[in-house]
Amino acid sequence: MGELCVRSVLVTGANRGLGLGFVQHFLRMPKPPQWIFATCRDPKGQRAQELQNLASKHPNLVIIALEVANPASIKAAAAKVGEHLGGSGLTLLINNAGMVKSKNLEDETLEDMTETYTTNTTGPLLIGQAFLPLLKKAAQGSPGSGLSCSKAAIVNISSIGGSIASSFGWEQMQVVSYRCSKAALNMLTKCQSLAYKEHGILCIALHPGWVQTELGGSTGYTPPVRVDDSVQGMLKVLSSISEKDSGLLLDWEGKVVPW
Amino acid sequence: MGELCVRSVLVTGANRGLGLGFVQHFLRMPKPPQWIFATCRDPKGQRAQELQNLASKHPNLVIIALEVANPASIKAAAAKVGEHLGGSGLTLLINNAGMVKSKNLEDETLEDMTETYTTNTTGPLLIGQAFLPLLKKAAQGSPGSGLSCSKAAIVNISSIGGSIASSFGWEQMQVVSYRCSKAALNMLTKCQSLAYKEHGILCIALHPGWVQTELGGSTGYTPPVRVDDSVQGMLKVLSSISEKDSGLLLDWEGKVVPW
Repeated sequence: MGELCVRSVLVTGANRGLGLGFVQHFLRMPKPPQWIFATCRDPKGQRAQELQNLASKHPNLVIIALEVANPASIKAAAAKVGEHLGGSGLTLLINNAGMVKSKNLEDETLEDMTETYTTNTTGPLLIGQAFLPLLKKAAQGSPGSGLSCSKAAIVNISSIGGSIASSFGWEQMQVVSYRCSKAALNMLTKCQSLAYKEHGILCIALHPGWVQTELGGSTGYTPPVRVDDSVQGMLKVLSSISEKDSGLLLDWEGKVVPW
Repeated sequence: MGELCVRSVLVTGANRGLGLGFVQHFLRMPKPPQWIFATCRDPKGQRAQELQNLASKHPNLVIIALEVANPASIKAAAAKVGEHLGGSGLTLLINNAGMVKSKNLEDETLEDMTETYTTNTTGPLLIGQAFLPLLKKAAQGSPGSGLSCSKAAIVNISSIGGSIASSFGWEQMQVVSYRCSKAALNMLTKCQSLAYKEHGILCIALHPGWVQTELGGSTGYTPPVRVDDSVQGMLKVLSSISEKDSGLLLDWEGKVVPW
């Protein structure tokens, strides 16, 4: 397993939960990234307080406004990130922002389905498009021919809830709009891996475990996995994967999750 | 293999392509259904001419207005179907209406993603909810304990394009919004099979083959499978499946398609 050596990284939904966990772990690395872009809807708001505190201590951490459901906001964020990076590219894009509506099948609505899909699936697609030039630049500037997360990669935080084969946790929570959006995100990851391979970009979907976050706990159950353990596991996985893994869904311990 | 013996059936998107093919095949059966509900957006319009001609000759064929992206229209259609059926239930619901936008990954937009998902995924979910009472009634009124399409069933017309494992046809057509919506439809089918099993309703997703329809031909290639052969194959599959198949994706020849 190689060391994860990331020159620059962007994490969406970085003001809490797994997103904040990623930022903290990147800051604590022996060789932290030169740039850590932490995006959230409202960087000045109360809910971004922890991120603001971190940024005041770490000059390599930049907070950027980004609404994953808003194409104009995504494009503006990509432009800002490009300015910070100067001529260099973005090594790692972590599409972490996500949502869940805790509902049963009979209570799902058009609005639930659309909102959840826009945030969990369309957002990552549009963000992938907007940051593609910067990811390409990172790949072009990196030596070696194989794909890796130290060269250029898109990481989509998905879920075993999106595994059609497993029906994980159905008895506890149906969350059909969430499951559909994550199955679609797994498909998007596969498509991105096929389309972006020629540009030298690795694409992977990760199941972070059932984690003690606001989202993970929103179903009324206490999730078993701590944020720290999940993020540490995922970073270990990212450090070890290569071209053969591109397009897969892996869990935070590196195991392949069936579609 | 048993004979498909359907007391009543509803087909969405029935004015052309596979939907019209289903209606024609049901009308030609030795024992045709007592009621065939053929839905389309505009029953009086030019694009429903063939359906109107058929209905003028077959009193068991009823054309109903239904917009799959409009919850109020879906509810109104369910109420009308209920009136026609009197006290009896709906045996078979075929969610056939669907759409594709012929685009590459880099050209997909928020609007494409939302429109395709609403039509291909959310529509079938909402239609399943609205017709659930009628499907339950059909199951309750049918003898025997196992699930079958002659008892009560939801059939979602999906696609191998929604198979994450196969990446079928990627080189010819990327159609990412379509692929994502069909992967999500496969997940929905699995969820429906889990939720509706206790009500005696079988749920299945079908890949009709790459068929010579407006949708199938919209990518600029000539599809290999004729509408008649596809529909005949799917009806044979529907006649043979049972409880153990519920929640799966099968192709028009009965083979399991991997997720």
